[in-house]
Amino acid sequence: MAETNRQWKLQSRPKGLCAPGDLQLVESPLPAIQDGQALAKVKYLSIDPTMRVWMAIDTYLPAVAIGEVMRAAGFAEVVESRHKDFKKGDKIVGLTGMQDYCVIDSGEKRTSFRKVPYIPLLSDTAFLGVLGFTGITAYFGMMEIAKPQKGETLVVSAAAGATGSIAGQIGKIHGCRVVGIAGGAEKCKWLTDELGFDAAVDYKQPDWKEKLAAATPKGVDIDYENVGGEIMHEVLKRMNLHGRVVLCGLISGYTKEDPALESFATILRKRLRVQGFIILDYADRFMEGATQLGKWKMFGKLKDRETIVEGLEKAPEAINMLFTGGNIGKTIVKV
Amino acid sequence: MAETNRQWKLQSRPKGLCAPGDLQLVESPLPAIQDGQALAKVKYLSIDPTMRVWMAIDTYLPAVAIGEVMRAAGFAEVVESRHKDFKKGDKIVGLTGMQDYCVIDSGEKRTSFRKVPYIPLLSDTAFLGVLGFTGITAYFGMMEIAKPQKGETLVVSAAAGATGSIAGQIGKIHGCRVVGIAGGAEKCKWLTDELGFDAAVDYKQPDWKEKLAAATPKGVDIDYENVGGEIMHEVLKRMNLHGRVVLCGLISGYTKEDPALESFATILRKRLRVQGFIILDYADRFMEGATQLGKWKMFGKLKDRETIVEGLEKAPEAINMLFTGGNIGKTIVKV
Repeated sequence: MAETNRQWKLQSRPKGLCAPGDLQLVESPLPAIQDGQALAKVKYLSIDPTMRVWMAIDTYLPAVAIGEVMRAAGFAEVVESRHKDFKKGDKIVGLTGMQDYCVIDSGEKRTSFRKVPYIPLLSDTAFLGVLGFTGITAYFGMMEIAKPQKGETLVVSAAAGATGSIAGQIGKIHGCRVVGIAGGAEKCKWLTDELGFDAAVDYKQPDWKEKLAAATPKGVDIDYENVGGEIMHEVLKRMNLHGRVVLCGLISGYTKEDPALESFATILRKRLRVQGFIILDYADRFMEGATQLGKWKMFGKLKDRETIVEGLEKAPEAINMLFTGGNIGKTIVKV
Repeated sequence: MAETNRQWKLQSRPKGLCAPGDLQLVESPLPAIQDGQALAKVKYLSIDPTMRVWMAIDTYLPAVAIGEVMRAAGFAEVVESRHKDFKKGDKIVGLTGMQDYCVIDSGEKRTSFRKVPYIPLLSDTAFLGVLGFTGITAYFGMMEIAKPQKGETLVVSAAAGATGSIAGQIGKIHGCRVVGIAGGAEKCKWLTDELGFDAAVDYKQPDWKEKLAAATPKGVDIDYENVGGEIMHEVLKRMNLHGRVVLCGLISGYTKEDPALESFATILRKRLRVQGFIILDYADRFMEGATQLGKWKMFGKLKDRETIVEGLEKAPEAINMLFTGGNIGKTIVKV
């Protein structure tokens, strides 16, 4: 066992990409473990876009503190244990941090570290990739939010990434037409030739919007969104009525400041559900709504007020009142 | 019966508010009805923000054509009928248009016009307001999308409007803390003193953001959004985890061009469901996801690829690769 532990510590919050010095590699002595702790050798680190967010701001997890070891998910092997749940030789995944060795505390939450089973043919790295956070992200995003149906069109952005490539294949398993958006010919070729995507659009080509349109002749039912910004806006334009957008990542915004993205970032971080809504979709149930409203009104639970404008000739003015704040309650023109 | 029919016809698509001349009042002879048609005298017109959208662009309904009678919902009484579903004296609501008289065709879709029942104590105008499109909009938006739970905090924008005022009261009926956002002291007073809202925030006051924060000490669980723009962005910032946003209107954007609003306008018009998603919410189900992914992988239905970067010292470069497009598939650092 090495006598020292190399650790990447956060020194300053990056602007744009990580610059040299934002993270600093320091050597510390190997920690001596206490009762209830275990020490594990980190073998592999999962590198994920969300790490750039952790370096900058509080989100669903607090930002990494300045001077702290950079947070990262990793695959590690227990080398010494005084912990009741882990023994020497156990292979584990969890938030190991960007370092050679990590200490597992007794108070560690169950989800922070978990033992990985031995599965024939599976490499250790699979527990960080296809069976790791990014694969599982694709799984639940598709199965619980997108709920893909046979014959639907799914568009995946950052489709050649760890999450996007799995999300798209889950779409294929469920009988969707799957279109990936990725940067460069090599990635696009991998998506169509190896992963079985129906089409791939290279957003670095000037005509990518036309290509996206051509690849989605029946519009888009599901957007598995990893990128945000211009790519998301373009996919949204092609969405079909009642489409679903799984807002899983906004990579395009992580390395720049863009107030226009802020509300979408809030939707993502707070895991909000935003649903567009037009009453015509409920045309068959108007009577149900009116009946309940009528009951509430008759029992005094609902009050209403009308702003009545007299004369058909005043109708255009009445429309403008809605935008200048001249009305209270329902605005009606008495013809 | 009058011999002429005054009709507001669309002459030009407004920029900003309706300007004189965008709509023109013309007189036409009363139409003679054919077999299968009925003629109705329009008594009241419903004036709704969506009319401004209909004047400008195709959305969930095509834009009103230049030269056509301006579309509007109204309350009318049948004065002459050769239509099997309507007889003289029937009171109806539907898309009458902005005119004195409207013709009901035999081919008219069932939802275009419906007879209103006689209900004691209810005025005719109630069928355009509390029991009309706007009230029913509030009803289904709240009951089907927001699904208010006792103790939750609901914020309603354009709260003194026809839809907002009903949506807020439906929140009160379901035991929510209800905060309305409206412009001016009179509207705010109406919301709290007469409709029973817990608080009202006057967005015309310079300190409205602080007032909104003070009025929502436990954050916001439901945003019934009618306005969009700055008001929506501010409410979103105060949303709690897993909150719901009923995107019902974007009034602030109807009279101006704002590309930042375009994606939200798309969400509304296409009735999309956008859901933010972070895998930690599924922490208890990781094994379920990994098991299914593992099965698919073993049966060859899922392929993956890893970009492995050798050496802990390369970890910061590996993070940057995610944003510069250097990786394919899962990026992993071998420590």
